[in-house]
Amino acid sequence: MIRPGFFDADIIDVDFGEGVRVVRPVNLYGCRIGAGSFVGPFVEIQRGATIGARCRIQSHTFVCDLVTIGDDCFIGHGVMFVNDAFRTGGPAGGDRSKWGATRIGSGVSTGSNATILSVSIADGVVVGAGAVVTRDLLVKGTYAGNPARLLRRL
Amino acid sequence: MIRPGFFDADIIDVDFGEGVRVVRPVNLYGCRIGAGSFVGPFVEIQRGATIGARCRIQSHTFVCDLVTIGDDCFIGHGVMFVNDAFRTGGPAGGDRSKWGATRIGSGVSTGSNATILSVSIADGVVVGAGAVVTRDLLVKGTYAGNPARLLRRL
Amino acid sequence: MIRPGFFDADIIDVDFGEGVRVVRPVNLYGCRIGAGSFVGPFVEIQRGATIGARCRIQSHTFVCDLVTIGDDCFIGHGVMFVNDAFRTGGPAGGDRSKWGATRIGSGVSTGSNATILSVSIADGVVVGAGAVVTRDLLVKGTYAGNPARLLRRL
Repeated sequence: MIRPGFFDADIIDVDFGEGVRVVRPVNLYGCRIGAGSFVGPFVEIQRGATIGARCRIQSHTFVCDLVTIGDDCFIGHGVMFVNDAFRTGGPAGGDRSKWGATRIGSGVSTGSNATILSVSIADGVVVGAGAVVTRDLLVKGTYAGNPARLLRRL
Repeated sequence: MIRPGFFDADIIDVDFGEGVRVVRPVNLYGCRIGAGSFVGPFVEIQRGATIGARCRIQSHTFVCDLVTIGDDCFIGHGVMFVNDAFRTGGPAGGDRSKWGATRIGSGVSTGSNATILSVSIADGVVVGAGAVVTRDLLVKGTYAGNPARLLRRL
Repeated sequence: MIRPGFFDADIIDVDFGEGVRVVRPVNLYGCRIGAGSFVGPFVEIQRGATIGARCRIQSHTFVCDLVTIGDDCFIGHGVMFVNDAFRTGGPAGGDRSKWGATRIGSGVSTGSNATILSVSIADGVVVGAGAVVTRDLLVKGTYAGNPARLLRRL
């Protein structure tokens, strides 16, 4: 049997604020996590991601490079952020110039199993569970569906 | 470097029936899991959740507080239950009075990547893979889509 | 307290090609993973699944029995493959004759949180993040939505 290269999910080179709590196993590397935030189990946060203060990143969530999340955000379970929209008909691979950035304001809540492409989301927006966010959400309101649409203003 | 508070996913204060099988790592605490049930890897089940007998809870699934699942249910992979629908425009936080309960009957099957808000689902209902269930499913049938709609009666 | 049967996610009886990299914890058993492929953390790949060369299977993904993936495929985060479409109104259980096979060509990209039922997907197809693929995708193009529809040809 050929033996593969084994690596282990770990917490490497992470800039933590005061009072962060983390439930392992997680795979966190090269990211920033602000003071008082919580990270649940089975979460991966990649190099280049920034998470503000007092956020909850719930179990099973994946936060990729180029994602910036403000303060006091609630990111549900199984939320997947996407920085590569396959714009050239396939994965950009290591070519960061083809990736898109995601900017999440403060006080944003995203429901479980939501999928967030490289968009901007305004302060206080609520994204429903299971929504697929393909465009900027600049009006404060509740959005849901695939693709996500405004349900009501807040 | 500020060192965060590390916790480890674990199995704490769980009321197991006879013959339950669990594939670790999982994060199970304060819940009940009935006789003969199976829990796959990378599953989280929170305090206050109740799972009946002979159920399968497949990998990557999250079951939250206030969820009651009957007997002989099949919960697919990556299924996310939700008890906080952000009804007041954001997460209820620790305020349990703002959460909703979910009641799943017996013989219910939910496909992988389904999202189940705080609803009631009747015995024998089938929820398709990737469905987002936002309302009660009281008629025995197969439901799919986002939001989930009745495809056919059973 | 009744003590359940505990098992541990592991790597058992896997046929690895040269140069595969795996980030644990994962649950891989009885499957084939081709040369140069990468498997992220919190992934489960079941007995009977075959993955080609130079693929990326990203974190949180589940690949089931009867799935065959070609070479040079990118499978995003939280992608769930399904082989049991509950055609008889409920889970087929161990009855493999009621499961469906999935055939993914080469150079296929599936976005994060996609759900793939037992279908055939042609070489070079792009499946958007959050899509639910319920039918064969035989025309080379980009597909998205629930259920997934052709957005544009490639």
